[in-house]
Amino acid sequence: MVTNAQAAHPENGTSTWWPSKYGPDDQAGALNEITPGKVLEAIRLVRQGRVYDLAHVLDQDIPAFPGRTFRQYLTTNYHQINRRQPDAGPAGLGTNSVNWIVEQVTATQQMGTHMDGLNHLQMGDRTYNGFLLADIIEDHGTNRLGIDTLPQVVTRGLLLDVAASRGGERLKPGDVITVADAEAALAAAGLDVRPGDAVFFHTGWGELWGNDNDRYASGEPGPGTALGEWLAERRVALTGCDTWSFGPFPPETHCEPFVVPQTLNVRHGVVVVENLRLEEVARAGVHEFLLVISHAKLRGATGAWVAPLAIL
Amino acid sequence: MVTNAQAAHPENGTSTWWPSKYGPDDQAGALNEITPGKVLEAIRLVRQGRVYDLAHVLDQDIPAFPGRTFRQYLTTNYHQINRRQPDAGPAGLGTNSVNWIVEQVTATQQMGTHMDGLNHLQMGDRTYNGFLLADIIEDHGTNRLGIDTLPQVVTRGLLLDVAASRGGERLKPGDVITVADAEAALAAAGLDVRPGDAVFFHTGWGELWGNDNDRYASGEPGPGTALGEWLAERRVALTGCDTWSFGPFPPETHCEPFVVPQTLNVRHGVVVVENLRLEEVARAGVHEFLLVISHAKLRGATGAWVAPLAIL
Amino acid sequence: MVTNAQAAHPENGTSTWWPSKYGPDDQAGALNEITPGKVLEAIRLVRQGRVYDLAHVLDQDIPAFPGRTFRQYLTTNYHQINRRQPDAGPAGLGTNSVNWIVEQVTATQQMGTHMDGLNHLQMGDRTYNGFLLADIIEDHGTNRLGIDTLPQVVTRGLLLDVAASRGGERLKPGDVITVADAEAALAAAGLDVRPGDAVFFHTGWGELWGNDNDRYASGEPGPGTALGEWLAERRVALTGCDTWSFGPFPPETHCEPFVVPQTLNVRHGVVVVENLRLEEVARAGVHEFLLVISHAKLRGATGAWVAPLAIL
Amino acid sequence: MVTNAQAAHPENGTSTWWPSKYGPDDQAGALNEITPGKVLEAIRLVRQGRVYDLAHVLDQDIPAFPGRTFRQYLTTNYHQINRRQPDAGPAGLGTNSVNWIVEQVTATQQMGTHMDGLNHLQMGDRTYNGFLLADIIEDHGTNRLGIDTLPQVVTRGLLLDVAASRGGERLKPGDVITVADAEAALAAAGLDVRPGDAVFFHTGWGELWGNDNDRYASGEPGPGTALGEWLAERRVALTGCDTWSFGPFPPETHCEPFVVPQTLNVRHGVVVVENLRLEEVARAGVHEFLLVISHAKLRGATGAWVAPLAIL
Repeated sequence: MVTNAQAAHPENGTSTWWPSKYGPDDQAGALNEITPGKVLEAIRLVRQGRVYDLAHVLDQDIPAFPGRTFRQYLTTNYHQINRRQPDAGPAGLGTNSVNWIVEQVTATQQMGTHMDGLNHLQMGDRTYNGFLLADIIEDHGTNRLGIDTLPQVVTRGLLLDVAASRGGERLKPGDVITVADAEAALAAAGLDVRPGDAVFFHTGWGELWGNDNDRYASGEPGPGTALGEWLAERRVALTGCDTWSFGPFPPETHCEPFVVPQTLNVRHGVVVVENLRLEEVARAGVHEFLLVISHAKLRGATGAWVAPLAIL
Repeated sequence: MVTNAQAAHPENGTSTWWPSKYGPDDQAGALNEITPGKVLEAIRLVRQGRVYDLAHVLDQDIPAFPGRTFRQYLTTNYHQINRRQPDAGPAGLGTNSVNWIVEQVTATQQMGTHMDGLNHLQMGDRTYNGFLLADIIEDHGTNRLGIDTLPQVVTRGLLLDVAASRGGERLKPGDVITVADAEAALAAAGLDVRPGDAVFFHTGWGELWGNDNDRYASGEPGPGTALGEWLAERRVALTGCDTWSFGPFPPETHCEPFVVPQTLNVRHGVVVVENLRLEEVARAGVHEFLLVISHAKLRGATGAWVAPLAIL
Repeated sequence: MVTNAQAAHPENGTSTWWPSKYGPDDQAGALNEITPGKVLEAIRLVRQGRVYDLAHVLDQDIPAFPGRTFRQYLTTNYHQINRRQPDAGPAGLGTNSVNWIVEQVTATQQMGTHMDGLNHLQMGDRTYNGFLLADIIEDHGTNRLGIDTLPQVVTRGLLLDVAASRGGERLKPGDVITVADAEAALAAAGLDVRPGDAVFFHTGWGELWGNDNDRYASGEPGPGTALGEWLAERRVALTGCDTWSFGPFPPETHCEPFVVPQTLNVRHGVVVVENLRLEEVARAGVHEFLLVISHAKLRGATGAWVAPLAIL
Repeated sequence: MVTNAQAAHPENGTSTWWPSKYGPDDQAGALNEITPGKVLEAIRLVRQGRVYDLAHVLDQDIPAFPGRTFRQYLTTNYHQINRRQPDAGPAGLGTNSVNWIVEQVTATQQMGTHMDGLNHLQMGDRTYNGFLLADIIEDHGTNRLGIDTLPQVVTRGLLLDVAASRGGERLKPGDVITVADAEAALAAAGLDVRPGDAVFFHTGWGELWGNDNDRYASGEPGPGTALGEWLAERRVALTGCDTWSFGPFPPETHCEPFVVPQTLNVRHGVVVVENLRLEEVARAGVHEFLLVISHAKLRGATGAWVAPLAIL
């Protein structure tokens, strides 16, 4: 599948990133860091039986990346059709008068609180593990790295409250979260980062969700390239922010848009979750938790709408 | 909201079911049975750090209820568009040549492994807690009982392997799972049913998924009405089978189609999960586990594609 | 199919409108007025061989009735897939390197320049010819009066330039076009209205299309109820304006929204075309022409995107 | 826009086809052959006032090219919503109790009776007039050659009944219609082909539509490459068959799939209409007629569902 040598691909720059450290056929990326032992470590964090839901509600009015939309229509036709059947009861199908309603949704998975597949971003024509897009593209999705290939996530979650450690104010668009920021937030919480962790950053930007969607979508603060590398070196499994992408926008270096999530995904296989709803959990002073993210497995899709759960 | 008196609604039969025991405004149904104490009880079941994924992959070829479809198309347009931008790099946007791909999905949530909202089924014109459909219908979904109103699920899960306790053969379409079946499966596993539990039934019918989809969709075994009532009396939070609906089809009583899920949903607020992938977990001899089901919160939708996790 | 007597339907007011004058099973409405003789009459109007296109371009940014949207996505996947086939040529499928691209559209037909089916509007629960919605509704559309049942249109078209005859200014939202207006415009053009004609009204409101879409959609001028009745009495086959509906909005009588198109459709079976692009043809001083409107026949749909042609 | 020289594009073979004879920016192709004089010539063919509709009904069950689908859902929600408004009447909005219904369609325009845009097919990466796909692709469609750029069609139509001239039997899959076939059919009808004409071929294959859709879609007879060139030399504006594509399938030369429509579209700009409903008009012995094809103008789309009208 990795059909072309390095020299033929100028987009690679000075180094290639394949085969991945998890093997040339790997599709799970840094989620490989989540072992049974890691699951047990995370389970032991639960003391209260409290569940925080880190997802926003999904509807047609949420902030969206240009060109992306979510539309849902309800159909109630079977209320009429059932009443016309030969075995209709007084008000529906059967003597039990059963009826049902169904919605139709048209949307991309790249909306709302979602987890990106490792196929979503590329560097030039190549994805994580060096697959060429031309080799993996199908009509319905990709035949490698689809969201259906990503393992379900049960691991230790950390919330680094950068907004709090910077003084309690919402960060601004283009603000770069540094390694020092991460270390300060960890020190304040008395925590460290370990392989297989999920590390989420609270920037306060998520307060705008539903309140000023245009502003929310116009820019974002986020981890800079140095912090991205720092996360990868610590072998975190996944990461995410209360913003629509990951990393500052406008970008840290003008000519490198979306370079942080691109590097995490493509080079390191670190999974990114976007549009996290972190206000509630940040206000509650939560820093360490059992994180569960399960996702519907749309074959070949580039992501999945999720509701990450922080369980304490 | 409950605008009409009982006498005006012949569909009610001899008894009404509202207000619900969880209050006249309740939208969570039997998920109210899942307390922090229940979460902790479930967490304590984890010993191995092993995660079983109980969801099937979702694509256009899966078994579907008549008239329901799932279609997904990949778009890779930004590979070309990014290369044409003023700040394009050698093979994409920026000097980092970033590109992305996105899918478009058109489907109902009532496909594949999914959890029904308490708005999906009605008795005549009324849902759980007696809401009239005419009062809650909106263009995009319902303004009460949408899947966005259902709490996320972290609870004790039980797998009753009826196929095994009946001798290891796959049950047949229309086969009725009885209270005695449930009790026998529980006794064999040395388990009991408690409030807030999720009770799943392995019938073996799920072996047909992906192997003979037409047959899978043509009928199903399932819990009968007596077992449905038994589950509700024990205050289970949710239930589900390795079948496309819940309850036998053809139905136990010819003139009462879908009466088991209808009664569970509408009268008792017990949530139903459909098309569970239970073969793997049944083969592994798993009977009791931490169950986590998190779902994307599509406002007003009638269900959500989910990947229930059985964690041991 | 007409299953209930008049007395049972209070929505009927003082008179019922079925069976229609074209018969109890008729689905063509006033398009029945277009006979072969009428076609020939219309054909004879062509002198120059000039074709005016009365449709706007359809895209995601056009004015829309609340809740209605049009989305289109291009997929180019076969450019990659074809190159990977066993019989691929140098740059596509075969030695001829053939490739293709396809779009996916999600939308209602009730967008842009479109013709309403006689099933689109109801008075209470009843459509044209007294069909009950509950009897004709199916999951995909209606089993009577779908746009597929409407004949294709080849007839004499008239453009009544009310904006011009009122002094050349664009009419305002809520402005009522009267019978006197119609008669003045006809007299100015030396024309009369005959059975089977299509009568279009130029109000100037269409200038806002693409220039100020919010204002365009916020209201409209249009024929009042008296003019609606006058058109029906003259047995016109269809009618339309350069506005998003037909008839003034705010409505002539506050408590009667959309009563003009409702009466034309439901009571008289007169077909309505919306969002006509009339600026060009009005500026050219065209008043009488061969009108051709052909429409794709989506089974059971409530309308069809069309491009009406005025041929001179 | 034509950014690369011939030598850089090995897909071109021995000759390039751009700039087109209609100019380097032309997007109308052979529809340029339809002049006002041509319109008048066509109009004069009408003697009876009879209109034949050459389109099939469009629904979810029609024959489809692999991967293409058409889905339509009706929504009747406003029947409930309107009755709940402050200004609701007895059975809908206002004292006139108005209600409406709307469908939602998800589909490609490449379904059913449709006209291909000149952007639908490519030779390698190039379209008609040599545009590079990479230069014209946008998220919603193409910025050149979209179906919105094709003129509306009013011209002389010819029906060559090859099934009849070959003895009355339906042609078989892979059967090649030759120049001799065309000349024989023309001679039998006493007709000739002139610039700007639309030439349709009746093969009898269309009898299978709706009767044996699988067989219909499994192959087709059609004009061979020599006849394709013959049509282009005669400067026909458009052409089409009662088949799902144009040209024999399996193809005349095994390694050249879809080379006939590819050559007509890409090299000559001749427009192709597919899935024509020709049985009725062939049985009626019609050979020459006024043809009108008007199409909705979806910006950048690759085709349009149409209902071509043969008017006599």
